[in-house]
Amino acid sequence: MTDAAFTADALRAGNRTTLASYSARHFGWRLEQGVATITLNRPERKNPLTFDSYAELRDLFRQLAYATDVKAVVIHGAGENFCSGGDVHEIIGPLVGLPMPELLMFTRMTGDLVKAMRHCPQPIVAAIDGVCAGAGAIIAMASDMRLATARSKLAFLFTRVGLAGCDMGACAILPRIIGQGRASELLFTGRAASGEEGFAWGFYNRLCAPESLLGDADELAKTIAAGPTFAHGVTKTMLHQEWSMSVDEAIESEAQAQAICMATRDFERAYHAFAAKTRPVFEGN
Amino acid sequence: MTDAAFTADALRAGNRTTLASYSARHFGWRLEQGVATITLNRPERKNPLTFDSYAELRDLFRQLAYATDVKAVVIHGAGENFCSGGDVHEIIGPLVGLPMPELLMFTRMTGDLVKAMRHCPQPIVAAIDGVCAGAGAIIAMASDMRLATARSKLAFLFTRVGLAGCDMGACAILPRIIGQGRASELLFTGRAASGEEGFAWGFYNRLCAPESLLGDADELAKTIAAGPTFAHGVTKTMLHQEWSMSVDEAIESEAQAQAICMATRDFERAYHAFAAKTRPVFEGN
Amino acid sequence: MTDAAFTADALRAGNRTTLASYSARHFGWRLEQGVATITLNRPERKNPLTFDSYAELRDLFRQLAYATDVKAVVIHGAGENFCSGGDVHEIIGPLVGLPMPELLMFTRMTGDLVKAMRHCPQPIVAAIDGVCAGAGAIIAMASDMRLATARSKLAFLFTRVGLAGCDMGACAILPRIIGQGRASELLFTGRAASGEEGFAWGFYNRLCAPESLLGDADELAKTIAAGPTFAHGVTKTMLHQEWSMSVDEAIESEAQAQAICMATRDFERAYHAFAAKTRPVFEGN
Repeated sequence: MTDAAFTADALRAGNRTTLASYSARHFGWRLEQGVATITLNRPERKNPLTFDSYAELRDLFRQLAYATDVKAVVIHGAGENFCSGGDVHEIIGPLVGLPMPELLMFTRMTGDLVKAMRHCPQPIVAAIDGVCAGAGAIIAMASDMRLATARSKLAFLFTRVGLAGCDMGACAILPRIIGQGRASELLFTGRAASGEEGFAWGFYNRLCAPESLLGDADELAKTIAAGPTFAHGVTKTMLHQEWSMSVDEAIESEAQAQAICMATRDFERAYHAFAAKTRPVFEGN
Repeated sequence: MTDAAFTADALRAGNRTTLASYSARHFGWRLEQGVATITLNRPERKNPLTFDSYAELRDLFRQLAYATDVKAVVIHGAGENFCSGGDVHEIIGPLVGLPMPELLMFTRMTGDLVKAMRHCPQPIVAAIDGVCAGAGAIIAMASDMRLATARSKLAFLFTRVGLAGCDMGACAILPRIIGQGRASELLFTGRAASGEEGFAWGFYNRLCAPESLLGDADELAKTIAAGPTFAHGVTKTMLHQEWSMSVDEAIESEAQAQAICMATRDFERAYHAFAAKTRPVFEGN
Repeated sequence: MTDAAFTADALRAGNRTTLASYSARHFGWRLEQGVATITLNRPERKNPLTFDSYAELRDLFRQLAYATDVKAVVIHGAGENFCSGGDVHEIIGPLVGLPMPELLMFTRMTGDLVKAMRHCPQPIVAAIDGVCAGAGAIIAMASDMRLATARSKLAFLFTRVGLAGCDMGACAILPRIIGQGRASELLFTGRAASGEEGFAWGFYNRLCAPESLLGDADELAKTIAAGPTFAHGVTKTMLHQEWSMSVDEAIESEAQAQAICMATRDFERAYHAFAAKTRPVFEGN
């Protein structure tokens, strides 16, 4: 083995992992054909978040950045609800009266979950039925695409517990999805938006029947997983960071990013498949 | 009285005011249950703006930053129109031929009105019937939420008087509400958008019957005024300033801002109300 | 002639050109009443782009910045399609296997076309029928306004050839037009959006019948060309560059930009026309 190869192996060892055998403690986890499915699974309470599930989700999404066997992620809730947000007894109660450094430690931890969701290269598809509230609405918002049922109820409830709408990036991300006027109303009033509203506003990409929702999300994720996944990761990075660039800077950044993708074998594979009139088989490199 | 209390009192004295007894000269003013109602009231001319009303509005919105008795604002027009914009005889005529420093003094003054509307902590609800044109359209745009009638006519008329669409922040704010393509058309052509269009685009949060419009706006403002008004002010600040942050910076900013709100008594009140199965009564502190 | 006049003439000579006699080599070009019409004209292949047409379009849009006889631009495709994007045989094939500096030279060249479209002062109206794919979708997106037919098919196909969605500014510009959620789906999946979808999302300003599409686009462009074209150019500049400013900075920038427009003769013309109850005749100065 040459030194260069040795170094490359070391690089890979330090930067790659697999999550096929990941064993989740605070939610369900399944990995099939490159699609990881995360199931928030306390259906009897509408799948609330706890300190533990927040932290484990954050750690898992951080690991996804290095996972070579996960190409796309589906997140959904067990039963007929997505997620009711931070549990009042397990989260809100303990927060009341905490000293400021500990409050900030909590809000940074929840914010870190959103950062990890935005920074992992895998596109995330949220499948939303029933209640999608508080931190649950944030998880939906922080996903890349959203399928929902007409009966879903999206509510940014923070104002109802005396807090501001600016939770985990909502004042930055929500207006970029649905526009500033609609985001303002949802964040100031905490009112629930119906599935039809969410679809009309571009929050949801599609409305699905409850019985087909998870299957539809899985199918979308599988289509993405079968695509040029290295390039998808670049798309995700650029969608994330170009919001705070000038358009001219963004164009130069994309020139560089796309040149990188033109040096991949997936680009070559696509061209040869096209020339041979076959479908390309992408390998994500 | 301790020195610390003395200092706190001085701080309050320098930073707080009340507007219950404010007596407006160039528009109507009413304050009820924390909701201030501003009425543009020259209905025979469709409520145009003048140098005087611009300046008084700017000064009033600046004072709102320190007003403890105003929790939300409704702005609307007398009669069946919202506002026809800058008066041609009283504003446009005098501007023609002015030296550049005075032109800039005028455009900065009008821009300062929008800045003051975006910087006061109170959410602003615009109630829009009939004509909503020129600077009137800008005031609607600079509000936080907008209710309108189907017969309302929204027009950014600047191009019709030989000017650019970039007036008082329109090229920054309008695309963030309705998207760049629709904003471009309205600003390049000056055409009127109907109530249905404005609602479909997310410029209006709701369409109301003419006879219920003001009541609906007042009800929305009262709901907001009954909420955690300190937290609402934080939401408004963050919605305003996160547009030019990266998403990661925004998430850290929100972690700090929300930690501040978790140290308020309104957060505590909400938790105790929830635990007691009652509705929280917020006090804005 | 005074020295000052001499200098002004020199300034004009260095900064002004006319394009009435421009003779396009790789697409159609027509100039009528201030409206330039660019026709992508290889209808038998659905009007693909080649290295040559990319480069000529870039150079032409750069020249438009100095062209005094062009007030608005219409871009459309010959036959019943807009543009099928980069030709697979003429562009994608040659790119495969190129060294990185040459790949970057290509992606910068295509990005420079979008920059030139955003930097020329003339509003650009795209008229879109049939296929609007890949780089064709980008040209539509980089225009200021878009009219389309219901049967049009918009597709950001980059993912299908193994590339990322971040091509020529798409990850920056598309979300600003249709929102981040819809943009994410189009860029990750490459799926075609119908005319109805594009209209509902604000990508298209209007749907037109196929037989009236080009005429409608021409009429819109003529209306704009008859307006205050200097001010229109300022509107376009500000719509472009205010995305990466804070709202407060944007308001100050607009105060300056609008003060410039108030010093133009078109502003004066509009006022005098209004006072005389006639329609203003703008001259773009």
